[in-house]
Amino acid sequence: MQINLQAIVERSDTRAGRTFDIFVQALILISIISFSLETLPNLDAGTRKLLGIIETIIVVIFSVEYLLRIYVADKKLNYIFSFYGIIDLIAIIPFYISSAVDLRSLRVFRMLRLFRIMKLIRYNQAALRFTKALTIAKEEIVLFSVVTIMLLYLSAVGIYYFENTAQPDVFSSVFHSLWWAVATLTTVGYGDIYPITVGGRIFTFLILMIGLGVVAVPAGLLASALSKVRMENQEKENE
Amino acid sequence: MQINLQAIVERSDTRAGRTFDIFVQALILISIISFSLETLPNLDAGTRKLLGIIETIIVVIFSVEYLLRIYVADKKLNYIFSFYGIIDLIAIIPFYISSAVDLRSLRVFRMLRLFRIMKLIRYNQAALRFTKALTIAKEEIVLFSVVTIMLLYLSAVGIYYFENTAQPDVFSSVFHSLWWAVATLTTVGYGDIYPITVGGRIFTFLILMIGLGVVAVPAGLLASALSKVRMENQEKENE
Amino acid sequence: MQINLQAIVERSDTRAGRTFDIFVQALILISIISFSLETLPNLDAGTRKLLGIIETIIVVIFSVEYLLRIYVADKKLNYIFSFYGIIDLIAIIPFYISSAVDLRSLRVFRMLRLFRIMKLIRYNQAALRFTKALTIAKEEIVLFSVVTIMLLYLSAVGIYYFENTAQPDVFSSVFHSLWWAVATLTTVGYGDIYPITVGGRIFTFLILMIGLGVVAVPAGLLASALSKVRMENQEKENE
Amino acid sequence: MQINLQAIVERSDTRAGRTFDIFVQALILISIISFSLETLPNLDAGTRKLLGIIETIIVVIFSVEYLLRIYVADKKLNYIFSFYGIIDLIAIIPFYISSAVDLRSLRVFRMLRLFRIMKLIRYNQAALRFTKALTIAKEEIVLFSVVTIMLLYLSAVGIYYFENTAQPDVFSSVFHSLWWAVATLTTVGYGDIYPITVGGRIFTFLILMIGLGVVAVPAGLLASALSKVRMENQEKENE
Repeated sequence: MQINLQAIVERSDTRAGRTFDIFVQALILISIISFSLETLPNLDAGTRKLLGIIETIIVVIFSVEYLLRIYVADKKLNYIFSFYGIIDLIAIIPFYISSAVDLRSLRVFRMLRLFRIMKLIRYNQAALRFTKALTIAKEEIVLFSVVTIMLLYLSAVGIYYFENTAQPDVFSSVFHSLWWAVATLTTVGYGDIYPITVGGRIFTFLILMIGLGVVAVPAGLLASALSKVRMENQEKENE
Repeated sequence: MQINLQAIVERSDTRAGRTFDIFVQALILISIISFSLETLPNLDAGTRKLLGIIETIIVVIFSVEYLLRIYVADKKLNYIFSFYGIIDLIAIIPFYISSAVDLRSLRVFRMLRLFRIMKLIRYNQAALRFTKALTIAKEEIVLFSVVTIMLLYLSAVGIYYFENTAQPDVFSSVFHSLWWAVATLTTVGYGDIYPITVGGRIFTFLILMIGLGVVAVPAGLLASALSKVRMENQEKENE
Repeated sequence: MQINLQAIVERSDTRAGRTFDIFVQALILISIISFSLETLPNLDAGTRKLLGIIETIIVVIFSVEYLLRIYVADKKLNYIFSFYGIIDLIAIIPFYISSAVDLRSLRVFRMLRLFRIMKLIRYNQAALRFTKALTIAKEEIVLFSVVTIMLLYLSAVGIYYFENTAQPDVFSSVFHSLWWAVATLTTVGYGDIYPITVGGRIFTFLILMIGLGVVAVPAGLLASALSKVRMENQEKENE
Repeated sequence: MQINLQAIVERSDTRAGRTFDIFVQALILISIISFSLETLPNLDAGTRKLLGIIETIIVVIFSVEYLLRIYVADKKLNYIFSFYGIIDLIAIIPFYISSAVDLRSLRVFRMLRLFRIMKLIRYNQAALRFTKALTIAKEEIVLFSVVTIMLLYLSAVGIYYFENTAQPDVFSSVFHSLWWAVATLTTVGYGDIYPITVGGRIFTFLILMIGLGVVAVPAGLLASALSKVRMENQEKENE
């Protein structure tokens, strides 16, 4: 019996284990949708009550699951202080302490378990490759992050000097200009803040010419590192 | 005669077949333009009538073509239930059932036939390479799609907490915040919804720093896989 | 004398030839700036007159240069009907025919001559590699352009169905929706037109998930082809 | 003693040297934050005074550091006219000459020293690779920059012809149109200036189809050159 329970709860290569995994993941999805629906304004009392009941049922099931996982674990403390153990606890504790802050959205981290079922197939390989690729390109990514932050700050100071006198309400400080720098260098460009002086626009052009290269490089590095890792794995398989 | 008809309708490596293909594709283009024109408001009755006549003529020709294709097919059921067979049917059926819902825009799928003529030359190779590249990078693309959806949801929940009290009408629920997350992480940035609190803006910056990398990687992977497939093909040709 | 003139006008590997090239290019730049200044509204009569004089002087010099180039050319007709020959003519003819349409901006094509002086150094190599890279990735780029146009049209038809009833003035036809599709899939997002219905927003999300990959791939392909060409050249040099 | 001081000030591979470096960098960060805070409008007198005191203290320390660096340098003139020597002077001189123009923001360049401490670990390798990658892709990047500027100008002239009559206040000259070209081709799209005529919109579509490829290529080239440099370094290490 003990072995059976362990096989169901911990492993996902048995039929029962896979069913259990899918059941838990379905509950996570329902819980996330229910959490999102609760944020809708003008919900009528009936719906709100229904969502409350769903929430209670889900938390009870998650609590049972948490206790089960402790029960079947060979090294109980190891599970409790593991990444998933902590996530599992965080997912249910807010309900019991009925804290003012709503932590239920953290339940989304339980979605990470979706990757568990993927272990069955080959998706863990993709995740593994991603980690490897990050390791390969780590130094460049750190370098580019530092350069990006310096560039953002310099852009903010520059545009502040150009635009502050023309638009004192919009570019009212370096911090407000930083918001402009973020929206511009990422090319989001909401349009809530933009230069209107000739100097500010030329400055924006120059910053964008440099900035686009800097901001877009990390994604390219990651993609190229990922391709390389995949290629190496294939070479190993061929040998 | 039977053979000739088949050569004209099904194949595109004969002169007559190519002419037939180009004729059908021209009709598809006319049909698409006519469909688009019909959506224009304030069309006068004369133009509307003309477009209706064009539509009738095109559907009649397409119907004849559909019947011809069934007639010349060696295995008639195979054609009827093939991808192109279904598309060919969908392209004419709305006209006959004069359904309330306007399905004529589905005719655009017939444009896929444009690729048939390309088979003549080498463009099918490019399409083939694209399919191969997708197969190579499939796992990473699925992984990144899952991560993107999780990131979008987490961004939406995060910005909801920061902005809901400041802008209850704009960030009125997690679903409204999701729209912000889509517009921001894809860097479209329409400007209809954006954070105004300091916390929300810092959160946007952090999310963009991570998100830009995640969102831009699949395109890089695809491009790199495509280059790899092209290289492999060239090596084969050289051997 | 004949040989000297030819060396000055046609070649750029002599001292005099280089000086002549730089002189012509400087004139092109002045001409472009003067053309741009003329478009400024509220110019006073004095400035306008000065710009007219500058324009006359430049056209006269360019005319002399054009005649010189014909004079020194070994095969005169070859020059006249060459790419640069036609550009040289287009650059001066508008002034003489004082046509209603202002073609002087076409003079910017003369800037292409800037690449001539680069031939001296190694920049022609970069331009050559670019042409080679385009040839390598040609098929994929054509394929992606076709797919992009189909995607734009399908996006436009889709959003038209979702948004037309909610915003009949903004998404008033498939053509107006096409403008939305262009601004959205390129992630420019001016904010003059965007979906407000739930269906339209979900549709936008789905289209962007597919579209970002499609739109960004050609640049990646080009970059990867360019790197490949550079690598091949280096291998040749090493041999 | 002399040697000890030199070890502390100039080198960062000793314990004391590292502590000194971190201390100076912390001061730089404090100075930058203090500078940014000063730009905030509606600061009360107390805070402003406090920031002034912090500023004075920091400049005094930086002055001592500057003199120390001259004192310990083996070749004093070499240091004074070196890149860092000039930066160090620029960082303190504005305070003394209390110039009308506020140059204190230039102090951000001192942040470049942050890279010095990285020399300890392996980050100098990443910076070195970046320089190498820039050298490799230099020609293409210069070519694409020239093409980008030409494309921006041609886009501006084009849109000016299409939109000037429809929106004389927005697209009032080629220079105003240039601002549109920058915001559009970088896909920032603030939404302060966009075409409204059919011709202008079709022109925008065409320009974006070409422009997206051109603008995004340099980042791809840089990423690919960086990957190549990393690969070469690894091969050397393996040998």
